[in-house]
Amino acid sequence: MKTSLLQKARAQYQPKLPKGLQGAVKVKEGAATQSVGDQDEIKKLFPNTYGMPIIEFVPGEEYAAREMNVGIILSGGQAPGGHNVICGIFDAVKRQNANNKVYGFLMGPGGLVDHDYIELTSDYVDKYRNTGGFDMIGSGRTKLEKEEQFEKGLEIIRELGIKAVVIIGGDDSNTNACVLAEYYAAKNYGIQVIGCPKTIDGDLKNAQIETSFGFDTATKVYAELIGNIERDANSARKYWHFVKLMGRSASHIALECALQTQPNICLVSEEIEKEDMTLNQIVEQIATAVAQRAEAGNNFGVVLVPEGLIEFIPAIGRLIDELNDLLAAHGSDYKDLDKDAQHAYILAHLSKENADTFATLPEDVARQLSLDRDPHGNVQVSLIETEKLLSNMVGAKLDEWKKEGKYKGSFASQHHFFGYEGRCAAPSNFDADYCYALGVSAANLIANGKTGYMAIVQNLSAPAEDWKAGGVPITMMMNMERRNGEMKPVIRKALVELDGAPFKKFAEKRDEWARETCFVYPGPIQYWGPSEVCDRETRTLALENEAKK
Amino acid sequence: MKTSLLQKARAQYQPKLPKGLQGAVKVKEGAATQSVGDQDEIKKLFPNTYGMPIIEFVPGEEYAAREMNVGIILSGGQAPGGHNVICGIFDAVKRQNANNKVYGFLMGPGGLVDHDYIELTSDYVDKYRNTGGFDMIGSGRTKLEKEEQFEKGLEIIRELGIKAVVIIGGDDSNTNACVLAEYYAAKNYGIQVIGCPKTIDGDLKNAQIETSFGFDTATKVYAELIGNIERDANSARKYWHFVKLMGRSASHIALECALQTQPNICLVSEEIEKEDMTLNQIVEQIATAVAQRAEAGNNFGVVLVPEGLIEFIPAIGRLIDELNDLLAAHGSDYKDLDKDAQHAYILAHLSKENADTFATLPEDVARQLSLDRDPHGNVQVSLIETEKLLSNMVGAKLDEWKKEGKYKGSFASQHHFFGYEGRCAAPSNFDADYCYALGVSAANLIANGKTGYMAIVQNLSAPAEDWKAGGVPITMMMNMERRNGEMKPVIRKALVELDGAPFKKFAEKRDEWARETCFVYPGPIQYWGPSEVCDRETRTLALENEAKK
Repeated sequence: MKTSLLQKARAQYQPKLPKGLQGAVKVKEGAATQSVGDQDEIKKLFPNTYGMPIIEFVPGEEYAAREMNVGIILSGGQAPGGHNVICGIFDAVKRQNANNKVYGFLMGPGGLVDHDYIELTSDYVDKYRNTGGFDMIGSGRTKLEKEEQFEKGLEIIRELGIKAVVIIGGDDSNTNACVLAEYYAAKNYGIQVIGCPKTIDGDLKNAQIETSFGFDTATKVYAELIGNIERDANSARKYWHFVKLMGRSASHIALECALQTQPNICLVSEEIEKEDMTLNQIVEQIATAVAQRAEAGNNFGVVLVPEGLIEFIPAIGRLIDELNDLLAAHGSDYKDLDKDAQHAYILAHLSKENADTFATLPEDVARQLSLDRDPHGNVQVSLIETEKLLSNMVGAKLDEWKKEGKYKGSFASQHHFFGYEGRCAAPSNFDADYCYALGVSAANLIANGKTGYMAIVQNLSAPAEDWKAGGVPITMMMNMERRNGEMKPVIRKALVELDGAPFKKFAEKRDEWARETCFVYPGPIQYWGPSEVCDRETRTLALENEAKK
Repeated sequence: MKTSLLQKARAQYQPKLPKGLQGAVKVKEGAATQSVGDQDEIKKLFPNTYGMPIIEFVPGEEYAAREMNVGIILSGGQAPGGHNVICGIFDAVKRQNANNKVYGFLMGPGGLVDHDYIELTSDYVDKYRNTGGFDMIGSGRTKLEKEEQFEKGLEIIRELGIKAVVIIGGDDSNTNACVLAEYYAAKNYGIQVIGCPKTIDGDLKNAQIETSFGFDTATKVYAELIGNIERDANSARKYWHFVKLMGRSASHIALECALQTQPNICLVSEEIEKEDMTLNQIVEQIATAVAQRAEAGNNFGVVLVPEGLIEFIPAIGRLIDELNDLLAAHGSDYKDLDKDAQHAYILAHLSKENADTFATLPEDVARQLSLDRDPHGNVQVSLIETEKLLSNMVGAKLDEWKKEGKYKGSFASQHHFFGYEGRCAAPSNFDADYCYALGVSAANLIANGKTGYMAIVQNLSAPAEDWKAGGVPITMMMNMERRNGEMKPVIRKALVELDGAPFKKFAEKRDEWARETCFVYPGPIQYWGPSEVCDRETRTLALENEAKK
């Protein structure tokens, strides 16, 4: 394996640890907890892991070494810092007892079920310190939710003498971690399960979790690129750049990037849904900003578009829902029709409102909505090139306005989609430190016999030594939600809060950003420079923590 | 103007200067020069600026301050470091005499012709030190080639008491700088013209110019992103990523990125042309690598595609040439036909060979070739989404092979195009130093009464203080080439040399890179870390300089 010069130098970085985790660790327990909603149901579903106290780790006395083999699983999409969580667990587990073994289950939760694993050795782990990616043990999207999977996993857990499994994942994976913890507890198997909050999307966040890991690094990579593109737009002065950003349903990534780079426009799906905006209204809003800038001679700009936008436009959301049902019910008689006949078929079978919406869509988007379904029968929204859709529609709108004499500028566009560029970037100092601390916390939760907990680190706007590490019962973050037609206990997904500090800051500034050219160019992530450049947290985290004071 | 924290910290960076430019400067002249080709014609066309010696700047004695107002023009596409060239000129001109004035002509060569300019002040210049972009004075693509433009420019030059104009641009802009220098010299106007070698594409390179500025930073940004995507591919293990890279005709950017990141496949247009490969052969070559990796269970990989690929596929190049002529001749009767009729029209009017090629193209590519023409009547090759074209055709080929039982893997692809992300990045230490030195060199060429020279800095693989700064007569780099049907004196464009060290290194390794997973993850540009991380030159430059020894 040839490593880059940066990677070699970066391997030497020793992540900063909070005071509470630097030496011997003592558990400080808080009061009993409640779930955020549906307390009775959650309590009934999780009798063994409900109501446990929040835990904080504080400096303590050295205690006798504890024997604990640990198995680790990476679940779902990549996020920068995952390797450092593993390094933190590894170091803390070996520190408990050098004979302890740490196993990595390969390619996600499937590795546990299929008994596919490696033992992590010191040499192997050292190659991955402070690196991006999940290639150390791979990741996967197998859902751990059935008893037969739990029992199959137990076989290899027993065989390897594993005391605890750490699942590093997003909201769904941590929900499943909790179900697994409860199952093993109910069966008295003596196997602990601990979760870790991972996702670049930033939607695993609540009163206990200030941010999920990876959000910091990924948004900094995207902000670097958006800043570079803004500078290009401002130099060439002839293009509008439409930039779509990963982030699934939530607009946290787009909003954070906007706060970092001050583009002319940033769409926020959650606001569009709340305001019940139509696609046409969104297009008019962008076109208005383009026309306004054109009057000042500025025929250029940058627009950020969150990946999940389309489903949040209420009229299109309703259309997609009906289309999913329609195509599920009429799949095969429909499939054999030609393009035009399919289009006619859909128009004929939709309700009046949805047929009207469908008829207004550009041809290729209508086609995409009527064609591609994922394995669950849902439209693959991420395949819709929203950035092109919007710029085409804005262009058409401006042509209209030009004919009416309302617009005199020129409009040319460029398109970008950023996602894969940031998911596996080498972690920023923030994520490198945060993840390592999460890993050490997870190991200490295990050493103290905890199960059904998620490792957490709080007070993240302070210097790392003042961070507070600990654990929170996963049940505390749960409520009941409808999933595939059934009520299920799940961790509540955090969308952008329109009365939250980050959105309010953005809303206060955006008119000026649209009109003027207020671009900010953050540049690439730095590892060795001045602390204010290298160690700064995201604007989202800073504003949210500021508002809590 | 709000500046980022990185930008604030980076503003303090003092570019390193070669010894020869650190204090008072003396001119060391070499022997008389010849043009690289067509000496008689070039000499005849440039009687006043032909045959001048190469110049090197060495430490000298302080001399009396020289009065020299200077005008600066940024020409063509953005390249990181342009602002530092201007800063270098500014500092050196002011050092000659604090009363000297420096003017920036706005939005490219058009600013000279239209008398659109600003005076650069110390406060203004300081805001742009070590920043990316060309937004300091803007850039543009107006070609300076007509006498009336030269005379119109002279008016403002006289009005502002300008002694010399510096044109910072690519091969065409420097050719025009030389024509302008010759014109002003022939007319005895006493106005000097100096060029500077700018372009991220890396195709302005020859025995005197080791590399054009911007290539270093841009390729490092692209390599950062490609490395991140490689790590993602290697973590998720389910996608082939097809990455198209800017760079116009030449494949220098793709090749440099390949040397930095070791992807599975990198296409090199110059090789494809030389080997007379068809589109189908390229597709089969990629599909073969995909199938080979699939046998080892690796259904993922990364393919780099140079932007200019399509025109270099000889069969398609010939087709494009005939299409350009055909559509130029039959524009309007053709334009009113519908899609299918246009397709039929083209097939009917093309020669047999080209009609055959046209018939094999995917529908959307055929459509693109038969539709979009740039203002000069040429097909806009950069609009063809080569990365999607190739992955679609590879997918189709693999489907065939699957039916024949020759392939058993799974193939899913993702697409990326990187260009605007790197053109305006903040310059690397290398480009910040190199550009600043180029600017100081340009000012010294002016102070010493030179015209028709390009500022150069050589020995770029050594530490900056050992670099050799000077100037080379632009005529020395010229030969006669056919442009728009006429023979013209131009600077020879540098394509990738198949017997050059960078390509040979790549060719030696690529089979292993295709088969195995040898990805290297360079990470983002660093400004403050260990020197081997922060100050390293491109692999292309290192290999070329190594080979010269």
